Amino acid sequence: MPTLPPNWVKALKPSGPQGSELLQQERAQSNVDVERLSELLHTKKTLERRASLLALLQPERVFDKSQNHTLGRVERLQRSLGKAKRLQQLAEEHKWSMAELHAANDLIGEPTPYALHASMFLVTLREQGTPEQHKLFLERAERYEIIGCYAQTELGHGSNVRGLETTATWNSNDKTFTINSPTLTASKWWIGSLGRTANHAVVMAQLLIEGKNYGPHPFVVQVRDLETHQPLDNVYVGDIGPKFGYNTMDNGFLLFNNVKIPHVNMLARFCQVDKEKNHYTKPAMPSLVFGTMTWVRANIVLDAGGVLARGVTIATRYCAVRRQFQDHDADSRAGETQVLNYKMVQVRLLPLLASMYALHFTGRGMMRLYEENQSRMKAASSPDQELRGAGPEQLRAGANLLADLHATSCGLKALASTTAGEGLEICRRACGGHGYSSYSGIGPAYADYLPTLTWEGDNYMLTQQVARYLLKSARAILAGKPTGNDTSQILQVYLDRRDKGASFDVLDEDKDIVAAFAWRTAHLTFEALKHRDAEQRSWNSLLVDFWRLSTAHSQYLIVKNFYEAVSSPQLSAALDPETKGVLHQLFRLFSLHTLEREASEFFASGAVTVRQIALTRTTAVLNLLDEIRPHAVRLVDAWAIPDWHLDSSLGRYDGKVYEDLFRRASEENPVNDLVFDPYPWNSALLKYEPAKSKL
Amino acid sequence: MPTLPPNWVKALKPSGPQGSELLQQERAQSNVDVERLSELLHTKKTLERRASLLALLQPERVFDKSQNHTLGRVERLQRSLGKAKRLQQLAEEHKWSMAELHAANDLIGEPTPYALHASMFLVTLREQGTPEQHKLFLERAERYEIIGCYAQTELGHGSNVRGLETTATWNSNDKTFTINSPTLTASKWWIGSLGRTANHAVVMAQLLIEGKNYGPHPFVVQVRDLETHQPLDNVYVGDIGPKFGYNTMDNGFLLFNNVKIPHVNMLARFCQVDKEKNHYTKPAMPSLVFGTMTWVRANIVLDAGGVLARGVTIATRYCAVRRQFQDHDADSRAGETQVLNYKMVQVRLLPLLASMYALHFTGRGMMRLYEENQSRMKAASSPDQELRGAGPEQLRAGANLLADLHATSCGLKALASTTAGEGLEICRRACGGHGYSSYSGIGPAYADYLPTLTWEGDNYMLTQQVARYLLKSARAILAGKPTGNDTSQILQVYLDRRDKGASFDVLDEDKDIVAAFAWRTAHLTFEALKHRDAEQRSWNSLLVDFWRLSTAHSQYLIVKNFYEAVSSPQLSAALDPETKGVLHQLFRLFSLHTLEREASEFFASGAVTVRQIALTRTTAVLNLLDEIRPHAVRLVDAWAIPDWHLDSSLGRYDGKVYEDLFRRASEENPVNDLVFDPYPWNSALLKYEPAKSKL
Repeated sequence: MPTLPPNWVKALKPSGPQGSELLQQERAQSNVDVERLSELLHTKKTLERRASLLALLQPERVFDKSQNHTLGRVERLQRSLGKAKRLQQLAEEHKWSMAELHAANDLIGEPTPYALHASMFLVTLREQGTPEQHKLFLERAERYEIIGCYAQTELGHGSNVRGLETTATWNSNDKTFTINSPTLTASKWWIGSLGRTANHAVVMAQLLIEGKNYGPHPFVVQVRDLETHQPLDNVYVGDIGPKFGYNTMDNGFLLFNNVKIPHVNMLARFCQVDKEKNHYTKPAMPSLVFGTMTWVRANIVLDAGGVLARGVTIATRYCAVRRQFQDHDADSRAGETQVLNYKMVQVRLLPLLASMYALHFTGRGMMRLYEENQSRMKAASSPDQELRGAGPEQLRAGANLLADLHATSCGLKALASTTAGEGLEICRRACGGHGYSSYSGIGPAYADYLPTLTWEGDNYMLTQQVARYLLKSARAILAGKPTGNDTSQILQVYLDRRDKGASFDVLDEDKDIVAAFAWRTAHLTFEALKHRDAEQRSWNSLLVDFWRLSTAHSQYLIVKNFYEAVSSPQLSAALDPETKGVLHQLFRLFSLHTLEREASEFFASGAVTVRQIALTRTTAVLNLLDEIRPHAVRLVDAWAIPDWHLDSSLGRYDGKVYEDLFRRASEENPVNDLVFDPYPWNSALLKYEPAKSKL
Repeated sequence: MPTLPPNWVKALKPSGPQGSELLQQERAQSNVDVERLSELLHTKKTLERRASLLALLQPERVFDKSQNHTLGRVERLQRSLGKAKRLQQLAEEHKWSMAELHAANDLIGEPTPYALHASMFLVTLREQGTPEQHKLFLERAERYEIIGCYAQTELGHGSNVRGLETTATWNSNDKTFTINSPTLTASKWWIGSLGRTANHAVVMAQLLIEGKNYGPHPFVVQVRDLETHQPLDNVYVGDIGPKFGYNTMDNGFLLFNNVKIPHVNMLARFCQVDKEKNHYTKPAMPSLVFGTMTWVRANIVLDAGGVLARGVTIATRYCAVRRQFQDHDADSRAGETQVLNYKMVQVRLLPLLASMYALHFTGRGMMRLYEENQSRMKAASSPDQELRGAGPEQLRAGANLLADLHATSCGLKALASTTAGEGLEICRRACGGHGYSSYSGIGPAYADYLPTLTWEGDNYMLTQQVARYLLKSARAILAGKPTGNDTSQILQVYLDRRDKGASFDVLDEDKDIVAAFAWRTAHLTFEALKHRDAEQRSWNSLLVDFWRLSTAHSQYLIVKNFYEAVSSPQLSAALDPETKGVLHQLFRLFSLHTLEREASEFFASGAVTVRQIALTRTTAVLNLLDEIRPHAVRLVDAWAIPDWHLDSSLGRYDGKVYEDLFRRASEENPVNDLVFDPYPWNSALLKYEPAKSKL
């Protein structure tokens, strides 16, 4: 048998200085107040809740993460169901709120097969069901007696919801609906929790009454037996197979061969089919639905900051531990430099560090707007005259605000999720070779996050909505009918001043940075309007311009939200001046780095001069990198992502990067149980049964 | 038991028009000569060879791909060893050349555990071994009696090879070397084929003779027993664990506790340790090593085109089959539009289509230069005076050419692999939701390709070498010592004309496009030189500029190579005018789209005016998209990637996208054998044993 001196490997240390020493130095060189900044970002309550959840979850074997990246899909999916069940048991035992369940799920670090039941199925039943339907479906679903999903997307139709092919035909004779899949492309597809888990689905289907199509509506359909869990008659349902990520979720397909369901299974809070008269009643307030979408998108923007923070935390800590080459100009006796000192690394990582703060504050801002508007709407529509407090004008103002928020939320969703997704990959590459290891923790997070760039509206498709809204707003202004909301105002300012030209002092005046971003949006809006209205160019030929316009407007909104956050009295009250100052630098870095990357648009709009852009690139951004560099580790520490959540050897809080990579490779890696027979003429692959190996 | 009418699912068809009809239409609307273009790209011989290999491999069960995306790593790695063994058996049986083995491996579509044996191990032994060592190691390795790998990278050092920590200490007393790993970070890491497969390694270690360090040198070290395949004494070796991709490869780690090897195990063709005098002899011609690196990089550039072609083929065919929404300006009775008709899709895909051709021709160009230079060098260094035919001057010219090629090959490797890697992800997203399915075939290819952005020189690190070389060339010119190579010439042209300014007619004159790219490189070079030499700015503060400079220069080289290829008499002889015309449009699209994306640099250098950039964006590029669109499917067909190689439901040649997605999900997906017990209070996960399920 092979021999090694006992404990020889265990006694080996990485060459010095040690990662833990380097991170200590990093933390010592900055006065950023990590604790208060954490509380500002997450609230003290949220941090405490997470800490107690962590203490509960981490010791349980069922939540072990060590084999996540080695197992095949069959095994991973089963284990994930086990995690979901255990979480639900804990939720009942500890009477968790939705927020607590959500936070616990987050710590687990993977989507589970209950995810769509616990979100879209319950939400849709709650929001679109009548009290009768709540009793029939929602209450049982809340008790997990029925498990459901939300079946909208089909094999042939995703973005174009109106093109769905599944039909629900009203049978006036027996007061039922027949659900049918007339083609293969009508098969529901990508439906989370449907593949193996759900026994019910909210099915979006074209409502047909006496030959007339009333468009897609939601129907509750049972798809599997509650006892045997086998598919019901005339239902063909299964899992759609392996994916780039999200493999712990059973995304499913679903075909119906003329399945009958009772009248009560059409969710009827907003739209109804009158049983007796066989006619259809339209929704009263469709804008409420927009409200929900806006809320979902605000959450995506907020989450995008958190997702990006995960990658930036890992990459920043690792690049402070990793040392490679001497500085080119350094004394030859100098040691190797921390990778984080290289400008080429800083220019990739630190703007992302700024972005995660920018997205966070923007998501918060959207949330606040949404909530303000919701309460205004609620008050206005209250049957109690006393409670209303809002006349028709205020209601109209509210609607304007909602329209503004809805339209702009599309663009922000697109930009935020693209930034987070692509940002994770930038972080992964900034970790060099080790970024490619699953133990880096970035690759798995990236793979699971990517769907966000496609669902809730494909990021490219969505930009058309923003452009359409901006064009409409510009037309209203030209017609002398401004709405008074923010979009309307920035277009008006541009129009009033266009001939005089702009002269924004972006290098010295922060509010001029915001104004320059607004100016560029307005410039691109009126350019697009000219192409469309005066030159009558086709919509298709303008799609690229619209995408640029939406991106520009969303960047403006992020810059504006970030500026408002760092200038707010709340921030001054919560933080010491030094920490606040560093956040201010982050605002400037985010804005000026964006301005520089989009230089040709800023220049073409006349918002800034070529000289200003050159100075931004060669001086301002480089200086900001220098200024922020010493605070980088503390700025990621402030996001307070627990090591267990990061699941990363490279991003460990204690800096023991190499020890952990080695430990996982040698102790958690089942591949090392195999002893190959390496010779091509032996067809046997293994020399011994697994586990007889000597590593 | 649940019931469905027999064959109901099988009889369902996608809603029309069918994918196969749409691809037929696509192929009918273009006269691009697919066959002759294929032969131009790949040669007839290569295409025939691939066809016969395909016929041989595809029917063998061992090469089945259907479970690649569902299995765990332990299983995948074993199966891949099985594939590697079978390939080797076939190679012997059919007496394959290296090119045939390489082509067969390509068709298999995954790296196997023999990959590093068959490449770096054999190559290093062959190139760096003496005849004695060839007999001792190479010949046995070629017969697979010993299986090896190339162990350079360590846990703590990748890019900085001089910083490697593994030592090889010369013992003059017993004429041996002691190989040792003094720290944990000295552990070899990422070593392909080492984790479970190899029993030998070429180990790069610091050569120490009598206390003096002579830098990293290659040593052949046995690491596992040839019979039991267990590690040898004082060797700690294993697999480093799961990765973002490349999971069919056993990348390994390796630690030595003072292992002694004989003198003959140091590869000694170029450097030797004199056994008797205990002293070290330096290599005679270090530039030969540069030659190999240049060859490797030329191959990476060529492969980058092929890798990108895979993604573009899949996305282009799928976007021609996928229909979603009506055109915004269309008649309301119009059907849904092929996604490929949307400008927002075209602007993402068609420039990548152009890129894959651009990279292919550039790789070919590099290869030709390399080969020309190799034969010149060989002739010059021939001991036979008659054969030389080259005086010292020609030798110097050859060295200049090699220096030029070596420096520029770094930048091209970086740009080409970044373009291919990021391009695959753009292709995946252009496929919308279904791009996320593993059955799209893009995600797995992307995950396996990503290491290319890091190995053979990290893409960011490499750009410094290009910049260093350009600065050196510029200094030589200012000192009145131009070398006469291409780089030198473009710098000289710029210098001569700088004061007069440029006025390149990029919209109408193709050679002016090439000149504008050259001008921009030269401008950025002299700007960087000013910062470094006149302003004495630190190297670190210029890294971002250097990266931009390297990218600019590499773009120039690609544009130049592409232009030369489409203007060459060979192309005119091989293709009909229409096909040639379309390739010319691809050159223009690649160049003008790049120019537009880098607008601010072109403008700042004075190569083009703001007006020209605006016209490029709003007119020229859009027109090119219109012109190329009808030929898109034939242009990807010409790459002739077999369906079995693509392994993609979306990219099938016959357009049966939806049928294939459905078939794979329902027939090849083992997840559908599971019947969950879905209720949280039941801790059992499954209702029945697998395989008792009814889909």
